Amino acid sequence: MRLLIIGGSDAGIMAGLRARQLEPQTDVTLVVADQYPNYSICGIPYHLSGDVPDWHDLAHRTQTDLEAAGLSLRLGTLATSINAEAHTVTVTKPDGNQETISYDRLVVATGARPTATGITGLTGPDALGPADCVHQLHTIDQMHAVQRTLVTRHPRRAVIIGAGYIGLEMAETLTRRGLDVTMLQHGPEVLSTLDTDLASLVHSELVHHGVHVHLNTSVRSIQRGERGPVVISDDPTGTQKISTDLVIAVTGIRPNTSLLTMAGATTGPGAAITVDDQMRTSLPDIYAAGDGVTTKHRLLGDTWLPLGTTAHKQGRIAGENAVGGNATFAGVLGTQAVKVFSLVAARTGLRETEAQSARLPARSVTATVDDHKAYYPGSHPITIRLTADPTTGQLLGGQLVGTYGSEVSKRADVIATAIFAGLTIQQLSDLDLSYTPPLAAPWDAIQTTAQHWQ
Amino acid sequence: MRLLIIGGSDAGIMAGLRARQLEPQTDVTLVVADQYPNYSICGIPYHLSGDVPDWHDLAHRTQTDLEAAGLSLRLGTLATSINAEAHTVTVTKPDGNQETISYDRLVVATGARPTATGITGLTGPDALGPADCVHQLHTIDQMHAVQRTLVTRHPRRAVIIGAGYIGLEMAETLTRRGLDVTMLQHGPEVLSTLDTDLASLVHSELVHHGVHVHLNTSVRSIQRGERGPVVISDDPTGTQKISTDLVIAVTGIRPNTSLLTMAGATTGPGAAITVDDQMRTSLPDIYAAGDGVTTKHRLLGDTWLPLGTTAHKQGRIAGENAVGGNATFAGVLGTQAVKVFSLVAARTGLRETEAQSARLPARSVTATVDDHKAYYPGSHPITIRLTADPTTGQLLGGQLVGTYGSEVSKRADVIATAIFAGLTIQQLSDLDLSYTPPLAAPWDAIQTTAQHWQ
Repeated sequence: MRLLIIGGSDAGIMAGLRARQLEPQTDVTLVVADQYPNYSICGIPYHLSGDVPDWHDLAHRTQTDLEAAGLSLRLGTLATSINAEAHTVTVTKPDGNQETISYDRLVVATGARPTATGITGLTGPDALGPADCVHQLHTIDQMHAVQRTLVTRHPRRAVIIGAGYIGLEMAETLTRRGLDVTMLQHGPEVLSTLDTDLASLVHSELVHHGVHVHLNTSVRSIQRGERGPVVISDDPTGTQKISTDLVIAVTGIRPNTSLLTMAGATTGPGAAITVDDQMRTSLPDIYAAGDGVTTKHRLLGDTWLPLGTTAHKQGRIAGENAVGGNATFAGVLGTQAVKVFSLVAARTGLRETEAQSARLPARSVTATVDDHKAYYPGSHPITIRLTADPTTGQLLGGQLVGTYGSEVSKRADVIATAIFAGLTIQQLSDLDLSYTPPLAAPWDAIQTTAQHWQ
Repeated sequence: MRLLIIGGSDAGIMAGLRARQLEPQTDVTLVVADQYPNYSICGIPYHLSGDVPDWHDLAHRTQTDLEAAGLSLRLGTLATSINAEAHTVTVTKPDGNQETISYDRLVVATGARPTATGITGLTGPDALGPADCVHQLHTIDQMHAVQRTLVTRHPRRAVIIGAGYIGLEMAETLTRRGLDVTMLQHGPEVLSTLDTDLASLVHSELVHHGVHVHLNTSVRSIQRGERGPVVISDDPTGTQKISTDLVIAVTGIRPNTSLLTMAGATTGPGAAITVDDQMRTSLPDIYAAGDGVTTKHRLLGDTWLPLGTTAHKQGRIAGENAVGGNATFAGVLGTQAVKVFSLVAARTGLRETEAQSARLPARSVTATVDDHKAYYPGSHPITIRLTADPTTGQLLGGQLVGTYGSEVSKRADVIATAIFAGLTIQQLSDLDLSYTPPLAAPWDAIQTTAQHWQ
């Protein structure tokens, strides 16, 4: 059995490892476009912050580990087309020559790429780039480029376009490196994955650390100024020009699907490749997984929700099924967490507005509760919002903002587990959760919040 | 409606608050033997450690809070008998006189008291006591006595008899106060609520901080020596005499049931008062809750498992039902956590041996996994053991030992939530748990452990 995998990030590696684990005789080859198989893209801000001095440490596993597990890695090799009928993939090798590789089963895990932003000067002809201290930041190569700019150009000011996860983490990173950071956010609040009043707690944390946050701001263009890039944007008060030393544009991603769509695969929500619960595409013997494919959400059905956790799960299933298994993707809840300076924000399931958009009746309760008994040192409030069906009480979602070190993220996971299992908000109060004064209260903060439901 | 409650700790206070919340017209009177209604007994070690300088802060709510919520408190008042037929309780008032109080509904929440230890000199005639620097430690009054000994007698050495939760917390407390601490433990390892190999991690933590731990040691007697108490014990090598300056005996508790048994109530496992899922005793209009009553365990059925979390839940249900509600106790899993120096140990559900004793087939997997990506600073290993039914995979239990601050206890709660909901160990791997490099890995440590199951 020849299993070919295109893509060396979370989903591709998981698929290969799982295949070899279950069927050690499988010939597993990974075609990897860059030189960085199995790198933790989520770790990029932490190399740039200095927390991870050696960028090689960002690898989940070393190349040696992967080869020892039986994965044959073809780095610097770009897949250019799939012939589904012939069961072949054409690649461009590092030397520029083409080669056609045959497979019995194929897993495509080509992930996502930065969104076309519509920002003049960021893409297209005569676009500004690393030489102008203007960066996108989605790959290890792009991380190296930012690091080069930081150490060779010594920027004192930075503009970050986009206040999502990587934007927020980069705001912390660059502030800690001593830069004066301005964030430009299109929407009405940072961290659009949370309700705005909860996200405003993260906004305050940014301001507290000296970050300048501009909301409702649409970046029109980036231009070359006399002393560095100039960012031109529109906000409700008019057009703004910000001269800066460094621009980081992190405005989102879209599925990277051209290989499969050219081969005839169908697409679904978010223009991602359609996969079924076994991670099969519409093409024979071709599986796909990760940021480029549709995501089964346990409450919403098929959607597109690219996350590293999901890529790991989908990749594992694709690998198992590609070698004859029958694993089924259980679906996700979009559980996510981010650390921003001293705060952690997390969410799982649906916000009230998201539920209502999906025609699921929803109501929420919110409470701010100490993470542990206030008498024991180091207690901090966590703001918790729970969303549930007003009739049945079925738990639909949770959002939490609290202090790093206060077990905020695993509290989100308790809620995620409850939603996964179909529990009601009333049942949260019945859960037997752990208590000791340094870590909780006899009713955990989640339960105290749930008790506000009536 | 006159609701009378005997007991001013977790279960009694919860019952009263819930009754008033649902039926604000209810006349709620609490008969409280001591002067400390609603105190956090679990906080005792943290006042003695100095973490909570003002012991009043150990109150979950102040007396003013409780009275504002409509609870009428009769402090220093000891209930001496119940006449179930007449619906009256006789009490001894602070002035020594007796009084008979009528009720429509009664909630008995008299908790537990220290076990008769069989240790000569600890109880009985001519027993040593606080004047001899020999203490039991279960009440706020006993806490005050220990504090007096610490500040007036300046002990340099201490012997702690019993290595359960409060014993371990007191080992940390007294070590941090500069005492040289020796622990005497009857069983083969400290923290008998965990498997011995996991508990040995806590043992190592104690030794690392200079605590002398003696296992398999039965204390026979405590005697008055020339310069302080002398503890006589047997261990496999013979009889040991330890001269010390302070003895803390914390060897366990038993249900405090005499009021109800004298009134004719039936008892069950652990000689605790039998209650049904509505917290009704066998006597008409009498409810009971807390450490003195039987505990419905979701996997074991009726047992006795006194914990503050359970007392809160049972008290809330007793209060609701006493005023005409129909709440049902969902049952518990014995979820518990303790911090010992820099470690946290937690458990939920059943250990393999406990399951097998209950004729539940069980098998376990164990893994030691970083709490978050090792590349991000401050990562620590957590040792996790998961126990499940070998045939069905139904999750039965989890034990965890890891570093304080590594979200160990809420990971136990994720497992507790999964057991509560009847999930399998395989489903743990399917859960959509949160990930960000400073807080987890793309597969959480729980999931990595679950993936060892085959």
